[in-house]
Order: sequence, then structure tokens, then C-alpha cells
Amino acid sequence: MTEASRSYASHADDFRSGRSSPSALLEVQLSLIGRREPDVRAFVCMDVQAARAEALLSDARWRDGKPLSPIDGMAIAVKDIIETARMPTGQGSPLWTGFETRRDSASVQALRDAGVIMLGKSTTTEFAATEMFASTTNPHDPARTPGGSSSGSAAAVGAGFVPLALGSQAVGSTIRPASYCGCVGYKPTYGALNRGGSYDYLSHSCVGLLGRTLEDCWLSARAIAQRVGGDPGHAGLLGPDQLPDARMPRRLVLLETDGWRKASLGARAALEAKAQQLRESGIEVATRHTSPAVRQFEEALGDEPIALAWAIIGWEFRWPLKGSIDRHASLISRSMLSHMADCASMTQEDYGRALARRNALRIAYADLMASFDAAITLSATGAAPVGFTATGHPGFNVPASLLGVPAISLPLLQDEGMPLGLQLIGTSGQDAELFGYANRLSIG
Amino acid sequence: MTEASRSYASHADDFRSGRSSPSALLEVQLSLIGRREPDVRAFVCMDVQAARAEALLSDARWRDGKPLSPIDGMAIAVKDIIETARMPTGQGSPLWTGFETRRDSASVQALRDAGVIMLGKSTTTEFAATEMFASTTNPHDPARTPGGSSSGSAAAVGAGFVPLALGSQAVGSTIRPASYCGCVGYKPTYGALNRGGSYDYLSHSCVGLLGRTLEDCWLSARAIAQRVGGDPGHAGLLGPDQLPDARMPRRLVLLETDGWRKASLGARAALEAKAQQLRESGIEVATRHTSPAVRQFEEALGDEPIALAWAIIGWEFRWPLKGSIDRHASLISRSMLSHMADCASMTQEDYGRALARRNALRIAYADLMASFDAAITLSATGAAPVGFTATGHPGFNVPASLLGVPAISLPLLQDEGMPLGLQLIGTSGQDAELFGYANRLSIG
Repeated sequence: MTEASRSYASHADDFRSGRSSPSALLEVQLSLIGRREPDVRAFVCMDVQAARAEALLSDARWRDGKPLSPIDGMAIAVKDIIETARMPTGQGSPLWTGFETRRDSASVQALRDAGVIMLGKSTTTEFAATEMFASTTNPHDPARTPGGSSSGSAAAVGAGFVPLALGSQAVGSTIRPASYCGCVGYKPTYGALNRGGSYDYLSHSCVGLLGRTLEDCWLSARAIAQRVGGDPGHAGLLGPDQLPDARMPRRLVLLETDGWRKASLGARAALEAKAQQLRESGIEVATRHTSPAVRQFEEALGDEPIALAWAIIGWEFRWPLKGSIDRHASLISRSMLSHMADCASMTQEDYGRALARRNALRIAYADLMASFDAAITLSATGAAPVGFTATGHPGFNVPASLLGVPAISLPLLQDEGMPLGLQLIGTSGQDAELFGYANRLSIG
Repeated sequence: MTEASRSYASHADDFRSGRSSPSALLEVQLSLIGRREPDVRAFVCMDVQAARAEALLSDARWRDGKPLSPIDGMAIAVKDIIETARMPTGQGSPLWTGFETRRDSASVQALRDAGVIMLGKSTTTEFAATEMFASTTNPHDPARTPGGSSSGSAAAVGAGFVPLALGSQAVGSTIRPASYCGCVGYKPTYGALNRGGSYDYLSHSCVGLLGRTLEDCWLSARAIAQRVGGDPGHAGLLGPDQLPDARMPRRLVLLETDGWRKASLGARAALEAKAQQLRESGIEVATRHTSPAVRQFEEALGDEPIALAWAIIGWEFRWPLKGSIDRHASLISRSMLSHMADCASMTQEDYGRALARRNALRIAYADLMASFDAAITLSATGAAPVGFTATGHPGFNVPASLLGVPAISLPLLQDEGMPLGLQLIGTSGQDAELFGYANRLSIG
């Protein structure tokens, strides 16, 4: 096992014996950050002094045999829409740069209670939605975007700066940057991780996790859910205390989605080769070309998801954005102003119809998945695009977001010599099962 | 019609003709506040200068025949857990006194877009939940509590300082203080009014409205819903642009609930007399003593609702309160520390069971109400208690909160010579119908 693929949790024995320590790992991280952060620019701000002090406390807990959790001492990055009591929360917007909310988000509070160290805040697009004001680059090619909106979180994990980072996803903000930066990405079932204390209110948005390994993602997600649960009214992510055991799926759906027509030839070939490999290992992989049920669902999905997601978001962004635009329009991006203008005429009834349409897709998906273990597709239309004017196409990401179901991106594919994710999509509330399948498929 | 019972909206013709103006009404309010606020102490802070400037703009809009809404120029109070860009939001807690969140809540943004003026922030119990640090008194008797947690909002309306105030309700925080202070209180269907930008995250909490009249409550609620909808994922309160027409109910349930055994003799007599009056006007009023279906529901409800509500709240308050307690325990009340300690051992599974229990009650209530137009009960166990150590018993308030259904308190009853509310409880999403019945019952 190479160092880059080791989970943080795998160091436990060395932490206990004193052969290694959270402080020692933190210094490795800081050294790498010192060398590469001037090019990657993943962080909005860092609190190195506090991180070192907390790492020393974690060292002692491990030596005493009393870690607060399997991830005690792990130093992570936090997307800058997620509130932290000791660092400001800027929402990727000049309107909010440096704003101190004076509290930790639910996810940060829970992870701190598990001994996790908040090393810094990571860059995001404006309000985790539109333009990138930060200058973060892809750690695998500085000429390419890291993706968005969890841009800095994906870049920091992809560069090896941190084993894990917090993100979020309402469209494709976790799975796509994970794909571009070569990380594991996890978007949970809607409501499974408490979003309290994030500037993240959309009706299908979630806390997302970007990690070097599947194990660190699972342990961190469970550490959050055990301590602060899910969104209010949701019991929160359930499952074993350790990474779910590898479990071979028997029946998979390959979903092309609206992303397929935008996918590069290399990306399509990579997915088709992976599907062939899975079939050769005895797994049934049904597609729209082989299964009427899959074709029916793909047709129901159609090319509508992106427009549907943006209509829902347009209405839900009315607050607080209309108030911000009224007072500070010059500090809001042109693309956000334009989107809000497009949605200004939406009515409650229009929004209600969009919700009904989303719900119909959820029912159709649940019907389809009654006969399958999980779905697979690409995590992005190809390698991270060259340039920084956009953060990539969300065609492969919107379905799981709208459906409210769990999705995992595994860094198993390649396109243009760059990382590309294989996306596994599960059914609502079955996140642990999806991790079991992802664990199996990661082994190859 | 006396001045005290006139709705703000009923002044429209006078505003248009110039016989009156929002500025003139504001000066009447300010004069009353000048005389009585030293005793009532409903406000945390006020912004009189801005209010006067905005009232002048509203005067001009009315004279030009271009009001932004039927409530353009109405100067209101805002519960101090609801964010306002121009005034701090203190959450009734010394930990948050003076904190500037730099944005308006969804409800405030929408009302401002409707021309409404935010005159000041009104007092609340700590985190709208536990002890009262403010010294607000009941406008009808300075020796009595105004109730809580929307204490200042109810007191300000009851004293005639404002025609309307924003509150919230997760247990009994709108309906009970409305009862004690002689206001109309409205707790909408769960999700019907957007709570964005309030320190109000509980899974059955709502924006509540306290008003001098039913009409102002309805118009304000619709003004919010039309502009910012409901909570994300909810289309929001629907209904006519004007107060729903008075509509005679045919079949009512009289619910005793767990409140009955705590109710004063005077309060019980007041409700029984009202029920008799309704029967004499030809309405069927079924009770647990006359209807097996009602008895079955009352037995399902039992004496559990308060404990169930507090268990749910205990888990959901874990964030952000555990973080606050870890850092600033000396600034948190003893009762909150004690409740959080009681709930510290709750697990996700315990919380999940509490949610399932709440859902079972919702199903039982929906089954019962398939045969009735609405339920009636008391809004409180009696007159506002003398003294300030507590804000009153929530026995009559918890059911509608837990059930997520709309409730309206009408100031039609009396106990100990003090106001007492008749509470109407409806079915989920049928808020407009409930206003129609309330409109009819208000007429007498």
C-alpha cells in the first residue's frame, strides 16, 4: 500500500505505539502545502498554530490509548460555506469575505468532538453556485480547473495536503471536483448529514466529503452522524463503525444520463471498458440498450435535469440573494445576477410544479432500483477542462442530486492522462450498502 | 369598529386619499410606545429614525396609488431570533447579544419587499426555548408574564405598539403568548413560511405571526409566501390575496389534550361555554365523551406530547448548543445546561424512534380529521400566570406543533379578567380553510 492510498485510520497502531503521531503526519502535510500551495491555492485561510497545538493533544490521547475516534488528530480542510468558530466564512463571495459567524457548523462541531483538526478553509465558487473568484488550480495539471463548487476541498485532497475535506453538493459540487482531482467523493442521501451552520439551504443539498480513501470518508461521515445526526427530521446516516465490508454487486444499471452526449470519447471508452470488466467478473450490467426498464427511466430523466435543478435553485436562492442584490449588486457576479433575473418571474405555483416533477423522478428511480443493487456512470464528462472560465459540465452529477440518493466517485478511470471518477449511485438511505459495493469495486 | 380592532389593511382608502398615512399611524404607535414601553419592555432595540424615513416613502407610494402590497408601511416588531440586516440578533442569550448577522431573514426580506417597516426587535426567551433574561411584562397586567418564547412580539401587539409581530413556534411559542396578551396568533402548517435566516432549525418549528387582527396575520403570511415561499422543498402557504371569506364549520372536534388536567376552572368553563354556544348555532362539536374516534385519538396523544417534543428538541439542539456549552458554559442558562445534560445520552436510534412516534401521531390525527372541519381547544391553561419565573404551561400548544398542522389563537375568551385564546387547529396545508373558519368564529 502506497502512502498516498493509506487511510488516516490505518495509522492507528503506529499512533498508539509512538512510531508515528498526528503531529508527525501534520508536519508532512504542512511541508507539502509549503511546497505546492503557491501553485494549487486550495486554501482561503489556515490556522497552523492552532492545528499544531491540537495535534499535540491528539498525540497524547493516542499514546494514552484514549483517542476520541478512529480519526482523532486528522487535519482537514473545510469548504468556505461551512461555518467555523475560529476562522471566517466567506462563501466564495466578496460580499462575505472575512465574515465571522462565531460558531462551528454541525459537521465541524461533531468532527472536533471526534478529535479532528480544522486546518483551514478551502475555496469555493460564489455561494457554492456560480463563478470562481479564487484562483485554485488542479493539483494534477495547473492549467486545468479543479472543478467546483468544492474546488479547494478537492484540490487539497488531490494534492495530498489533507486526507479529507468537507464539501457540499446541490448540483455536482462534490462528485465532479472529486473526479477532476483524483479523490474519492461522497454525496450522502439527502438529509443524512446535518447541514446546520452552513450557508447551504437548498432543498436537495448535502454535506459532501472528499477523501484520499473510502475509509476516511466513511469514518468521517459516521463521526458526524453519530454526534449531530442528519438534517432536522432525519435520523441521519446509519451503518457500521468501520468501513462496510467489500460486497460484490450482482446487478448494476449503467446510466448514460444527459451527461453521455457531452462526454469525451476517452471518458466513454473508459466507462465502457470498466463495464466490460465488471461483466467479465460475473456482474450483470444493464443499460438502456439491453433493458426496457432502464430505457424507460433514461427517457423519463431526459435532458431536463439540469434545467429542473437550476429552476429549483433559482427560486430557493431568492432568499437571501434578492436582499443582497438590492443592497450590494456590485459585489454579486454577473452570472448570478443573470440567473436571478431569469428566475425573478417564478411563482410559488411554478416552484411547486418543479418539486412535483422532481418527486416523480424519485419515484421512477426507486421503481427501477428495486431490481438492481446500484447504478454506475461517469463522475464527469471527461478530464478536468483546461482553463478557469468554468468548473465543468454537471450532466452526470445532477441526477443523484435531484433524486436525493447517495453517490460515490471512485478515482478508478482516466481521460487525457488525468483522473476520472467512476460514479456509483445507490438508493435513498442505503449509503452503507453503496460503500460496501464501492469497497469491492475499488479492489478491482 | 374600534381603532384597536381595525386591521392595518383597513386604512388603505384613507392612505390613498391622504386622510391618514403610514407615517401618521407610526407616530401613534411611537407615542404609545413612549408612554408604555418603560413598563412593558417588549423591545430589545428599535430603529425609529429608519422607520420614520421608510414610512415617508410608504406615504408617497400610497398617495401615488402604488403601494407595494396591502400592508405597505405597516411598522412591525421582529422576534430576536430572526435576522435583520440593520439590527443585531441576540437570540435572547447573553452569548449573542448585539451580534450582527448582516442579512435579513427570508420573512423580513419578503415583508420589506412588501413595504413593511421593521420598527424593532422583540424580546424572547434564551434561544427561544428556556429562561427569560429580558424583563418583558404582560401589557394587560404588569405583574404577569407575557408568555414565551415570542414574549416581546405578543406584548408589543397586545399593548398596541404594533399591529403585527413576527414570532416562531416549536412548542407553544406563538399560540400561548398570543393567548396571554390578547392577540391573534397564527402558527402555520410546518414548512409553509420560509424560516431561512432565523436561529430556528427544529424539525417542527415555524415562523409564527402575532397580530391585532386575523386579516393582518393572513396578509402578512401571504406576503411572505408569495415572495420567498415556504421552507426549502415546500411550495409555501397558498390561498387568496385577501383574508379568506368567513365560513361556518359544520363539524368540530373539541380536543382536551394533556392541557385539560392543568387548565384552570375558569378556562375550562370558558371553553365549555364557547362549545355550547357553537352547538346552539348548529355546529356539531364532538368530544372524547361523545365520539369514540375522538376518544381514540385523545388516548393516542395521551400525556406524552411534551416529553416527546422535548426529546426531539434535546437532540436537535445538540448543534449548536454543545459547541457553545464547551466554550461558554457560563453564558448558558442553568435550565438549558440541565436539559442538554439530560439529552446527552440520546442516540441517533433514540431520535429516530421519537420521529417515528411523532409520525404515528400525525397519521392518527389525519385519520380523525378526515371527518371534521377543524378542532378547537384552549390556547393556554388559563390566564397568564402571575410572576416571571416561567412562561406558562404548553399542554394545549404541543399537539399542533408536533403534528405540524396550522393553529390560530383567537382572543375570544377570558380567565381571571385576563385574555384567553380559543385555539382552532386545522389539517396540514389547509391554512386558508382554517382562516375561513376563524373569520366566521371571530364574528361571534
